[in-house]
Amino acid sequence: MSKICTEELIRELSLLKTEGMYLNDFLHTWDKTDQEIDAVFTVAEILKEMRKDNISTKVFDSGLGISIFRDNSTRTRFSYSSACNMLGLNVQDLDEGKSQIAHGGETVRETANMVSFMADVIGIRDDMYIGKGHAYMKEVAQSVDIGHKEGGVLEQRPTLVNLQCDVDHPTQSMSDAMHIIDQLGGIQNLAGKKLAMTWAYSPPSYGKPLSVPQGIIGLLTRFGMDVTLAHPEGYEVMPEIEKIASINAENSGGSFTKTNNMAEAFKDADIVYPKSWAPFAAMEKRTNLYGERDFDGIDKLEKELLAQNAKHKDWECTEELMASTREGKALYMHCLPADITGVSCEQGEVAASVFDRYRVPPLYKEASYKPYIIAAMIFMSKFKNPADTLQGLLNRAGKRIF
Amino acid sequence: MSKICTEELIRELSLLKTEGMYLNDFLHTWDKTDQEIDAVFTVAEILKEMRKDNISTKVFDSGLGISIFRDNSTRTRFSYSSACNMLGLNVQDLDEGKSQIAHGGETVRETANMVSFMADVIGIRDDMYIGKGHAYMKEVAQSVDIGHKEGGVLEQRPTLVNLQCDVDHPTQSMSDAMHIIDQLGGIQNLAGKKLAMTWAYSPPSYGKPLSVPQGIIGLLTRFGMDVTLAHPEGYEVMPEIEKIASINAENSGGSFTKTNNMAEAFKDADIVYPKSWAPFAAMEKRTNLYGERDFDGIDKLEKELLAQNAKHKDWECTEELMASTREGKALYMHCLPADITGVSCEQGEVAASVFDRYRVPPLYKEASYKPYIIAAMIFMSKFKNPADTLQGLLNRAGKRIF
Amino acid sequence: MSKICTEELIRELSLLKTEGMYLNDFLHTWDKTDQEIDAVFTVAEILKEMRKDNISTKVFDSGLGISIFRDNSTRTRFSYSSACNMLGLNVQDLDEGKSQIAHGGETVRETANMVSFMADVIGIRDDMYIGKGHAYMKEVAQSVDIGHKEGGVLEQRPTLVNLQCDVDHPTQSMSDAMHIIDQLGGIQNLAGKKLAMTWAYSPPSYGKPLSVPQGIIGLLTRFGMDVTLAHPEGYEVMPEIEKIASINAENSGGSFTKTNNMAEAFKDADIVYPKSWAPFAAMEKRTNLYGERDFDGIDKLEKELLAQNAKHKDWECTEELMASTREGKALYMHCLPADITGVSCEQGEVAASVFDRYRVPPLYKEASYKPYIIAAMIFMSKFKNPADTLQGLLNRAGKRIF
Repeated sequence: MSKICTEELIRELSLLKTEGMYLNDFLHTWDKTDQEIDAVFTVAEILKEMRKDNISTKVFDSGLGISIFRDNSTRTRFSYSSACNMLGLNVQDLDEGKSQIAHGGETVRETANMVSFMADVIGIRDDMYIGKGHAYMKEVAQSVDIGHKEGGVLEQRPTLVNLQCDVDHPTQSMSDAMHIIDQLGGIQNLAGKKLAMTWAYSPPSYGKPLSVPQGIIGLLTRFGMDVTLAHPEGYEVMPEIEKIASINAENSGGSFTKTNNMAEAFKDADIVYPKSWAPFAAMEKRTNLYGERDFDGIDKLEKELLAQNAKHKDWECTEELMASTREGKALYMHCLPADITGVSCEQGEVAASVFDRYRVPPLYKEASYKPYIIAAMIFMSKFKNPADTLQGLLNRAGKRIF
Repeated sequence: MSKICTEELIRELSLLKTEGMYLNDFLHTWDKTDQEIDAVFTVAEILKEMRKDNISTKVFDSGLGISIFRDNSTRTRFSYSSACNMLGLNVQDLDEGKSQIAHGGETVRETANMVSFMADVIGIRDDMYIGKGHAYMKEVAQSVDIGHKEGGVLEQRPTLVNLQCDVDHPTQSMSDAMHIIDQLGGIQNLAGKKLAMTWAYSPPSYGKPLSVPQGIIGLLTRFGMDVTLAHPEGYEVMPEIEKIASINAENSGGSFTKTNNMAEAFKDADIVYPKSWAPFAAMEKRTNLYGERDFDGIDKLEKELLAQNAKHKDWECTEELMASTREGKALYMHCLPADITGVSCEQGEVAASVFDRYRVPPLYKEASYKPYIIAAMIFMSKFKNPADTLQGLLNRAGKRIF
Repeated sequence: MSKICTEELIRELSLLKTEGMYLNDFLHTWDKTDQEIDAVFTVAEILKEMRKDNISTKVFDSGLGISIFRDNSTRTRFSYSSACNMLGLNVQDLDEGKSQIAHGGETVRETANMVSFMADVIGIRDDMYIGKGHAYMKEVAQSVDIGHKEGGVLEQRPTLVNLQCDVDHPTQSMSDAMHIIDQLGGIQNLAGKKLAMTWAYSPPSYGKPLSVPQGIIGLLTRFGMDVTLAHPEGYEVMPEIEKIASINAENSGGSFTKTNNMAEAFKDADIVYPKSWAPFAAMEKRTNLYGERDFDGIDKLEKELLAQNAKHKDWECTEELMASTREGKALYMHCLPADITGVSCEQGEVAASVFDRYRVPPLYKEASYKPYIIAAMIFMSKFKNPADTLQGLLNRAGKRIF
């Protein structure tokens, strides 16, 4: 892409109202205005183009990007690391196992400040327990607020990026959306398209995060799409997120529909996103059992859920279902890794032939946007006039590779 | 702060005699002259001001800062990481669990050289066993000396920063001192002030490091303060450090007093630092038992010490004791995390109301100096003419954030 | 070294035909032409001189160097980290324990792409199982090829550096060769010199990698040396590598000889490299047992091998053997850590007095080349006109230390 196109994107960015993002956290997409969401896509694209054109996007000469992963992660860890690196921040991981956090007297407020003296950004994944992850992020955010504003303890306010909580997974849903925008040839082409976010059977695990389907219905309903959420009875997501989806759909001129029928969701869909998740009610129960340290209860719950799952083995993304989509050519999506029938398990979320057809490039491209989305989220939170700063980078014309 | 003020600090620095710090390690504060100690404070303040003014302090274009943590750490780990980052060094942790060090034939000398080919600095925490930590650091220092001087193996001599040993904790005591200097409005205001370094009861652990109280009495006696060390009988610190404190006090026109009475120490104190530690004699015994792999003996010793601790539950920093300090307003200090009565344990080092009153900003600010102190220690060891280099940075006027 | 000498080295580099290295991996030395091998030595030396002259060698403004260590490592880990750092890349380790790789559906192809969106280089150590390490590296290479070429998923093709596989250990053998070149005063002086790569007894381990002796005989036979491989019967290395060594020797005018007699190998040798390794056939058997999860079989095999090893305690590099080398002054080499008789074990690979005589500088210098060799391998794979780029760095004249 030529410098002229990048400058055109910067001009578009300059027209968006984004002051509210400055020194603010990115925890849920629904906390952000449409223009702010648009700005993140635009900055992500600008950063992507600048990197392609070998233009340095280093806006930090030094500074730390703290990461706190309370669950395993490969792609989000590397995406965060890539995003920080392309902006000039150095990642320092808070490994709670190697720290003194368990030690008496240490609180979230204390740790958050102690690690933030030179932190520009904090990325957190905490998706294991319903009611916990988002609450933890809010507590960290309030803690560094106190450290920055009241105490003069922190020279700068590190801003937070939610790398997946119990409620939303914004870096995933925004990357997914960017992939859809790219595939459909522009954000204006999303209106009227049908997206099916459907549950799918996955034998080996009973507790996959709800934040992926919730993130998708909470975000994609904003663009005038017809979003259908499909799952077997009992696999409900959080009601407040369904409500957000409904309101979004109404505002955007799209629709939000629920069904317990996978075929109905797939019928004439332009995009399908079949993926396993755990029932919200069960996850809530699990959090309570965990709180009571009732491990026998957790084991029992797990067995019940696996038995319940096993009743829905027919929730698989088959060739037959794919054939029923618009012209039989719906875009198949997944946040990866997927459970593929006959490959990673006897029976899973998706037929091997379907998965293979979409693996490279579509599924890998879908994942490739995440570093840029995270970098854009950080960028918007740290620069008051993002368009000016990006134009400044373009004028500086530093090279990424000598 | 204006550039003019920073230049004034640089001018002050240029008047100090600091040649002895160049290519030298920072292991104990008492190895350094008064002017050298003063230089570290001054450089720390300059770096802090430059960062505040968005001036890049990157003096290394590339280079590694090795870290070796033989004990858990949160704040020191992040402080070291922040310090290296602000100077342009990349931290590479030597995780002894993932290395081949246990492997036959590997010695301290060998490992020290093998990790140092591109290392500019090595930060070490080794505080677990009396008689071990400092000895280990000396061995590493001698090893890289051999590698640099005799062998031509190392292009540069990596300098060491003691991130806590069995004897001293200089990055802590220097940060604490910088906090006191800031609170009292200048280093000249320390003379004549009373500082009480006192033992305090902490139930969950019997073996907290001696290096904190030793670091404090070994450093703060240099500024003309009246330093009182208070602890129950049997909780003596190393006699050689008490001797250093006495000599310091004599030289500086202050005093160094010992007492077994907490109230006496608090009486009219300007600054109080109540903190648990283990008796030196017991820690020495523990090291010997460990050397003999006598784990039953260690268990027995631990039980004895916990029982002994339990006799001194009255050593708590209460509101009553605080009221007895100068105008009831002594500065309460702690290296954190603290054991807070009724919060992190049933009964601990400090009453919750006292701790809460000092939490933000004082206690968090106390911790906030550590990254700058570490950066200043590194800076002084790597630049022959630190004032000229800092002025050069000021003239270069690179921005930390674009 | 003066800038003029460095420019002379750059001129020499410009005469070498190295187009084949651009965007290519470095997996085995025998995949590379003589000119390409020569280019790596030359670039390593240029980078070493530039660093010595305080000239910045940062060719990457940002970018990641991925590391995957499937076995413990100290010196290679730090060498890779140093190499990346001196070129401007940030190391991001793929810790398979903290990732989602075990998770259903994740394949090598997928992981390789997911971590590579902003990766310029991938360094891999995978030396544990015969038939596995090199195969894994090939699979990673093909995966990122697909991601880059077919899918447009990866903006850049990350190139691979083999940090030790089951077959070759090119960063070790190339560093060893650079040490020999330095000690003998130039690559032209290697012809006609006798190098003895011999097995040695090491009690504590029965399974040291074959890749070190294989790397040495596969590389050093290219320079007209008389290379002797000595080991007890039953400790054969891979036959295909012996074949490569023979062909190399024929082409270079040197020789490749095998013997089961250590004394014969040492007789009149200019260079000796006594080191333990496991028999190839046994390692192959072990891989198969591992594949069948036959852990009893593995235990039994280990006992057999230890018993077999114990019959060859006389394979020790003694003073007597050293005296039989050319003028009693052969260069003793080891990749470290060594098993030293009476130091790290009762009886080992080398007598303490021999080892001590060569420790500093020779053995440590031998190790010191590895960061530069790795950096040179990366450099050659990422720059189409390496001589021009290096001259550009020299002209830019950025300083490593301000």
